[in-house]
Amino acid sequence: MIKAKVIGATGYGGIGIIELLLGHPQAQIVRLDSINDIGTPISALYPHLQGLCDLPIANVKQPDETPVDVVFMATPDGVGMQLAGAQLQQGARVIDYSGDFRFHNSTAYADYATRIGRDPAHAAPELLPQSVYGLAELHREDLRGARLVGNPGCFAVSCILGLAPAVRNNLVGLDRLICDCKTGISGAGKKTAPTFHYPARYENMNAYKLAGHQHVCEIEHELSAVAGAPASVTFTAQAVPMCRGIMSTLYGALCAGVKPDDVLAAYREFYKDCAFVRLYGPADQVGTVHVRGSNFCNLVVDVDRRTDTLRVVAYIDNLMKGQAGSALQNMNLICGLPETTGLMQPGRYP
Amino acid sequence: MIKAKVIGATGYGGIGIIELLLGHPQAQIVRLDSINDIGTPISALYPHLQGLCDLPIANVKQPDETPVDVVFMATPDGVGMQLAGAQLQQGARVIDYSGDFRFHNSTAYADYATRIGRDPAHAAPELLPQSVYGLAELHREDLRGARLVGNPGCFAVSCILGLAPAVRNNLVGLDRLICDCKTGISGAGKKTAPTFHYPARYENMNAYKLAGHQHVCEIEHELSAVAGAPASVTFTAQAVPMCRGIMSTLYGALCAGVKPDDVLAAYREFYKDCAFVRLYGPADQVGTVHVRGSNFCNLVVDVDRRTDTLRVVAYIDNLMKGQAGSALQNMNLICGLPETTGLMQPGRYP
Amino acid sequence: MIKAKVIGATGYGGIGIIELLLGHPQAQIVRLDSINDIGTPISALYPHLQGLCDLPIANVKQPDETPVDVVFMATPDGVGMQLAGAQLQQGARVIDYSGDFRFHNSTAYADYATRIGRDPAHAAPELLPQSVYGLAELHREDLRGARLVGNPGCFAVSCILGLAPAVRNNLVGLDRLICDCKTGISGAGKKTAPTFHYPARYENMNAYKLAGHQHVCEIEHELSAVAGAPASVTFTAQAVPMCRGIMSTLYGALCAGVKPDDVLAAYREFYKDCAFVRLYGPADQVGTVHVRGSNFCNLVVDVDRRTDTLRVVAYIDNLMKGQAGSALQNMNLICGLPETTGLMQPGRYP
Amino acid sequence: MIKAKVIGATGYGGIGIIELLLGHPQAQIVRLDSINDIGTPISALYPHLQGLCDLPIANVKQPDETPVDVVFMATPDGVGMQLAGAQLQQGARVIDYSGDFRFHNSTAYADYATRIGRDPAHAAPELLPQSVYGLAELHREDLRGARLVGNPGCFAVSCILGLAPAVRNNLVGLDRLICDCKTGISGAGKKTAPTFHYPARYENMNAYKLAGHQHVCEIEHELSAVAGAPASVTFTAQAVPMCRGIMSTLYGALCAGVKPDDVLAAYREFYKDCAFVRLYGPADQVGTVHVRGSNFCNLVVDVDRRTDTLRVVAYIDNLMKGQAGSALQNMNLICGLPETTGLMQPGRYP
Repeated sequence: MIKAKVIGATGYGGIGIIELLLGHPQAQIVRLDSINDIGTPISALYPHLQGLCDLPIANVKQPDETPVDVVFMATPDGVGMQLAGAQLQQGARVIDYSGDFRFHNSTAYADYATRIGRDPAHAAPELLPQSVYGLAELHREDLRGARLVGNPGCFAVSCILGLAPAVRNNLVGLDRLICDCKTGISGAGKKTAPTFHYPARYENMNAYKLAGHQHVCEIEHELSAVAGAPASVTFTAQAVPMCRGIMSTLYGALCAGVKPDDVLAAYREFYKDCAFVRLYGPADQVGTVHVRGSNFCNLVVDVDRRTDTLRVVAYIDNLMKGQAGSALQNMNLICGLPETTGLMQPGRYP
Repeated sequence: MIKAKVIGATGYGGIGIIELLLGHPQAQIVRLDSINDIGTPISALYPHLQGLCDLPIANVKQPDETPVDVVFMATPDGVGMQLAGAQLQQGARVIDYSGDFRFHNSTAYADYATRIGRDPAHAAPELLPQSVYGLAELHREDLRGARLVGNPGCFAVSCILGLAPAVRNNLVGLDRLICDCKTGISGAGKKTAPTFHYPARYENMNAYKLAGHQHVCEIEHELSAVAGAPASVTFTAQAVPMCRGIMSTLYGALCAGVKPDDVLAAYREFYKDCAFVRLYGPADQVGTVHVRGSNFCNLVVDVDRRTDTLRVVAYIDNLMKGQAGSALQNMNLICGLPETTGLMQPGRYP
Repeated sequence: MIKAKVIGATGYGGIGIIELLLGHPQAQIVRLDSINDIGTPISALYPHLQGLCDLPIANVKQPDETPVDVVFMATPDGVGMQLAGAQLQQGARVIDYSGDFRFHNSTAYADYATRIGRDPAHAAPELLPQSVYGLAELHREDLRGARLVGNPGCFAVSCILGLAPAVRNNLVGLDRLICDCKTGISGAGKKTAPTFHYPARYENMNAYKLAGHQHVCEIEHELSAVAGAPASVTFTAQAVPMCRGIMSTLYGALCAGVKPDDVLAAYREFYKDCAFVRLYGPADQVGTVHVRGSNFCNLVVDVDRRTDTLRVVAYIDNLMKGQAGSALQNMNLICGLPETTGLMQPGRYP
Repeated sequence: MIKAKVIGATGYGGIGIIELLLGHPQAQIVRLDSINDIGTPISALYPHLQGLCDLPIANVKQPDETPVDVVFMATPDGVGMQLAGAQLQQGARVIDYSGDFRFHNSTAYADYATRIGRDPAHAAPELLPQSVYGLAELHREDLRGARLVGNPGCFAVSCILGLAPAVRNNLVGLDRLICDCKTGISGAGKKTAPTFHYPARYENMNAYKLAGHQHVCEIEHELSAVAGAPASVTFTAQAVPMCRGIMSTLYGALCAGVKPDDVLAAYREFYKDCAFVRLYGPADQVGTVHVRGSNFCNLVVDVDRRTDTLRVVAYIDNLMKGQAGSALQNMNLICGLPETTGLMQPGRYP
């Protein structure tokens, strides 16, 4: 059995991995850490877990000698870089949810940190070279041996999976990619705010952070790596009144001579070994509800022939493939299990 | 492996049991029947199943010699009584979702049928004596050997579980029970209607079928059996703008001399061996979201001392404990498995 | 032109009366007061008002010699009693949204205050005798000359209007009235809280304040006055995932010999001069959406003959007839205008 | 008083104009026509109108000699072209909601009709030259004298208003405009369909009609006219789980040398006389809720300097500025009233 610890257990990201670990045949939750609610059973905070997981919250600041195989750091930016080193030294492998380990050198991190108004100096720069970007569809082999994983951002998962085959195969220009992204409100986490107050959000959708959303860094970084040349992305984050789900509509100018059939073939080839990516054509009727509660990414691949534009619509559950689902997929890989273990679930419809 | 067939596979009740069977360690879906969409893979109708269950729909009218252990009849009133006999003769056990087998003699059925405007004559009255009402918390022992189960109505599950301990222990009068029930819209099934059109239902709640809802029959029938005397119920069905969830608020006049502590003790005793019933006090914060996607029934047990009224708030997922979850629980019992097999899941929060 | 001032202008109750005053042909907003956001235009806080009302917020603590005819105190319990005296002295009439002026003597107020955990001593007991309970359908004549109005609670409006004709005409017993009330989340106001965080509330309904909701005081008080004998109410507050709307399902034991036709006749007679109360039978399809954005109260009047129970379903918009709409109706009455001025609007469907 | 008739009165577009006419100080509804529900009061179909508008539905096929000033044809494609001629001959002015009169010659209409799979031959081509495209912000002067108006499509209103100042002033290239549009479900009208069934739509968003949405024709047509050169648009329609509201995010490649300040200045100048267009910068927090129930169009104007891309987010209520609100605005203009009469309402928040 894989012994798993969750740090930041009481946020939506923590609760998501707890739910998944409960259903995993070869993993066991041994400790739940947080900075608040110490001593309270997790099921008192989240009553849906009562009878299934009643572990009390432990103090993240207290020494912990429980032997652990994997630590999930379901924590915001800046926490993982403080704590990961000690966990690694104790022999655990670490999967961090934040931006702390999504970049592999101090310069790339500094660029990201600056954009989100954080200190550009990383607290543990020596760990960056060994970190792996936790998107299995792009980095499966590196993840198999990884000790430290930077789990990707939710929007980023949808955009990168949606555009990677196109930029890899020179199907679209790299200088005018547009990512028009819409998310349910669970993406904002459990912290209350006037803009997420139920009556203020009911029957309301809006664009936000137009001045710059942090996920654009990793999207450009990963797409550039896939393309082998710099990719430039215009990114728009938008909130819609639902709980779970991301729909990202992605546009690129089709390169001269590229035919619609080439596009679909490229996507099929790129994802032929990826259990969690499902491909659809423009006439198929799929939506976020069809990935809700599951680890799948549904991609609708389309070419607008009137304007020679590639258009891909990517659907994920922001808390699953966009967060805890990818984290569990990464755990499977770094622990040598089949990638899909504990994850081949359909969600519930409707 | 238990070989399972689903008749009426393409409705919400069918899809619910398919999802559960996919996660059950000892069951296998061998056939999906319907009267429409013959030959179409279920995953073309319900894309969330793609890659997990791609069986084509078979014609329910075509002879079927597939050996089957359990048949789930996810069909409306009047279908099960036509088809159950043949299935039983082939050696299968049958779990029927409708009212066809919730009553155990022709008279009780006729009363029910009349109220819902159906022919009072049952098409297979000889099967009624062997049918068992599929609420494990009340009929566990009978279910263990059952060959034919009448799966309960969704509202009925919440009302019966919420009031059974009170009527069993003479805590409340039997002549003025009130069941004020609210349901999400998935309870209406997948058939479109103006009243379930999205814009018509958005930000709208209303009472319906005030003249009489069919579930009141089985509620009175079961509560009377538990009490050993006739119970009389005023029942109100109400629709609220959400998808899954039932909240039933149940009222009874407290019998003279009954103390609040007696009430809670009676509930604890009654459900002490029931894994899926969780009890709460009036200060606990639970809601339908805490049972969404799971087979649990959460009961808040309260006494309004100002008016000497018992008040119980029962929460279930209408498609789980209210339908497919109970059906799987019943399958476990009739097949001799632990009652909770494949069902100890928390749902996903938020 | 009636000169109107709103104190507590930046809450939902303040914004509601601002919206209505903008459409009133004989009223004019002259000042908006609050304790926060001083100097900020109301339209910067509520962008839907831009170009329609751009008044800056004034400091409620600053002396104000603007001549004012009516002051709306859209403030929580305890504020109105501090400020009303001065406003009255300056010649204004006062409509207070809170419980401060819903009771007409210190004893009744103390009972209410105790139940909600407030100081039982009223800060301006000398004003209580002149205050009028602001439900026009019961107190129209008193309101015409009133200088001080206690605007009713939202749940209370629905329960009192739904049961008054029955208790007035001895149709039901007074000792076992049940008010099962459901509200949209706007009833909680604009203050954020974990329980009103969008993801926590999505697809979630629940009962709350089971130990006692403050509105039960005024419901019992008013119904007792109408009946001429003490009425006893079991009250349940429940939250459903929508923004606006209250559905209150009201039950009473029918008195011996009362016939269904008597009931409907009594309701028709009681409300024959009330423009904002519309009556329906059990087969009519009405819901909260049909009163959303309007000042109407829709009552479905029904008798469950199986159990000899009166059942009334009352629908209102909690922010209109349940708050600002009633307040404007009261303003019309105290200013000698036709009661319906500026209020005969249908809302928008869907 | 303007005497108004509504044909197609029982759809969402009909009900929208009825609601607005009820609040208009100089208009009066004299007849409501449809092909169904003949003789039924409109308030029996739409109970929120009870007591405000109880006119029975008249048969559109019956001769009607009621003198009428304005006819609103709230009818689908193909109806207006059959009926408009007779109405005009009787001296009425006609505002048609469909695509029938949005184009001003047979060729342009044929192009549109072909794309939506209709007969390319217009039934009344002789009327096309006199028809005016009913977007007051672009065609105010022509509308003042108009007898026949083609009311614009809901998506089109948002896209055209959002991009017109940019294409007029050569701020963006015309060959790669992207309109990423999201709509609430009321845009689909009142006809039920599996994809608009409440449970199927709950917590679900998706792109649709990727192969081609009819509104792209009028968007390109109008933008080309404004620009004086052909504009090419990639258009994506997306449905989100709410009732009212359109959010269109519009992208164009900034022309060389254009500075962000130029952009905002151009928008301000373009809309300086337009009461219903409100302009915002990227840091302003506005959303669809701020235009819900009102005739305003809120535009957030932004330049993504990283990629030299113009990005405009346009917010409207699809049933108001996107339909009935524009229709009333057009009625005001063709009848010589101030454009804002009966329309300066804020909607209700929250």
